Amino acid sequence: MPLPGEFSLIARHFRRLAGPGSLDLSDDAAVFDPPPGCQLVAAADAVVAGVHFLPDDPPETIGAKLLRVNLSDLAAMGAAPLGYLLTVALPHGTPDGWIAAFASGLAADGERFGVHALGGDTVSTPGPATFSLTILGTVAPGAALRRGGARPGDRVWVSGTLGDGALGLRVLRNELAPDAAGHLARRYRLPEPRLTLGAALAGVARAAMDVSDGLLQDLGHLCRASGCGAVVEAASVPLSDAARAAIGADPALLSLALTGGDDYELLFAAPSERSEEVLTRAAAAGTAVTPIGVFVEGAAEVVARGADGAPLPAQQGGWTHF
Amino acid sequence: MPLPGEFSLIARHFRRLAGPGSLDLSDDAAVFDPPPGCQLVAAADAVVAGVHFLPDDPPETIGAKLLRVNLSDLAAMGAAPLGYLLTVALPHGTPDGWIAAFASGLAADGERFGVHALGGDTVSTPGPATFSLTILGTVAPGAALRRGGARPGDRVWVSGTLGDGALGLRVLRNELAPDAAGHLARRYRLPEPRLTLGAALAGVARAAMDVSDGLLQDLGHLCRASGCGAVVEAASVPLSDAARAAIGADPALLSLALTGGDDYELLFAAPSERSEEVLTRAAAAGTAVTPIGVFVEGAAEVVARGADGAPLPAQQGGWTHF
Repeated sequence: MPLPGEFSLIARHFRRLAGPGSLDLSDDAAVFDPPPGCQLVAAADAVVAGVHFLPDDPPETIGAKLLRVNLSDLAAMGAAPLGYLLTVALPHGTPDGWIAAFASGLAADGERFGVHALGGDTVSTPGPATFSLTILGTVAPGAALRRGGARPGDRVWVSGTLGDGALGLRVLRNELAPDAAGHLARRYRLPEPRLTLGAALAGVARAAMDVSDGLLQDLGHLCRASGCGAVVEAASVPLSDAARAAIGADPALLSLALTGGDDYELLFAAPSERSEEVLTRAAAAGTAVTPIGVFVEGAAEVVARGADGAPLPAQQGGWTHF
Repeated sequence: MPLPGEFSLIARHFRRLAGPGSLDLSDDAAVFDPPPGCQLVAAADAVVAGVHFLPDDPPETIGAKLLRVNLSDLAAMGAAPLGYLLTVALPHGTPDGWIAAFASGLAADGERFGVHALGGDTVSTPGPATFSLTILGTVAPGAALRRGGARPGDRVWVSGTLGDGALGLRVLRNELAPDAAGHLARRYRLPEPRLTLGAALAGVARAAMDVSDGLLQDLGHLCRASGCGAVVEAASVPLSDAARAAIGADPALLSLALTGGDDYELLFAAPSERSEEVLTRAAAAGTAVTPIGVFVEGAAEVVARGADGAPLPAQQGGWTHF
């Protein structure tokens, strides 16, 4: 009785991703000891070819981005990664080399972020390639950064730069001229999960989330969870050199820095009197952070103000699926 | 800024599935305490419309079956469920009532099996509906039932009855006349995870797995992991009344009891001198178990013998995706 192709495929490509507790991906389930004295953190994301990634994206980046997006959820909780489970639905006839490259991207990122596969499933689909990843992590008891803790008067902070992901997608769709260094496309394909920063913010940030659907929409979620509003100074939103150049050439693109998805930066609230501490901790974590506004009393509304202090016209919302 | 449809959809249909630690499915991740003194167990499965379920299957059964298939993996490890994460990729225009029924099936089974959602993701797809579920569970340290512990001389046991799932699929495809009670179709759509039995087998079973891809193929996996062979008496394989009637009418269908998938019964090894104890524990768990053969020295090969003691012709392998 020969081993059917599904098992051979797992052995060829996915077993190399397996870490401690995975039982080599060859039993019914993974078995592992939870790290002592920790709470567990868990999140899951799914991506579909043609919806969340471009069918001609390098396969190395597709699994890696899915892992990074999940790691970003851990970062937003201040958690550290423990392991992941991956389900893969592939069209018949997917080239073996494509699967190998997909797995290579995951393997490289697994090494980089110290996180390995615990299990998963591989199936066929008559539709587009579809992947789902569940990340497990740990956090010190009570230290998780929730969304609901922001208070009026707290500063609104973001890490890194915003808008690169949305601009990068336009570049990859040939709707925008690429920057010479390829920064924008790279940021779309391989966002940087802010794990070190997230862990460093425990005890100083009062609320946090990651920016995946666009700054204004996600800040709205944080406001609703916290029961307050927020005012953002559009001119304070941090931009990369590449984004600044693109917006300089076409000022209408500024709205992408406010509403574009795929940034995976951390958005967080901290008491204004602790701004120095925020900056010190972020510097130690090696990640730039920028204050971009303030939480205010009142309804859970987000206002973006221009350089003249007047509210910008209502921005188009972030990315939505339905 | 209105809430986009994706969040409304989650609130309408999936929030009711959420359990402790899920943070109401409204944060970046779930946060929960691992039960003290336990190891963690984790598994994931994906299903695709038209591949793993029939597009006209009742939506109540689709999510429920996916949950049960994952619970069956826990049962095969002797583990108890802790929670699940679900990702849902739905075609545009999926009727709200379909999603509501899908969620209702999951909700009912969540109550029945005492397991709730910790998190997940909802996305759109241009392809068939695709679902992925990661199950988390717990087991006493060192008690997990692995696949690699069977030894020559051990009995081969199975729970429940085999072949119903594969026969049920034929009924639903109008390739086989339905039984009056609808038993076969029901078993295909809603397999019974043997959680109580799995937990009861700790300490007496030396190896276990669940039968998802067909008895002979899965027993082959168990043999390879254990480094021995197995001989199965085909006449001993337990059949339901409905399966027995179908096979009586068409003896060729017997092969489905040996090679058909979708049974989700437990297949396990126990020392022959402990057969009484196996029967006692299974009776206490409320699940019938049947000895169907013996593990033997030698290569990891599985032989099915007929009533005359002669090997049956090599059976077609189980279900495979690639």
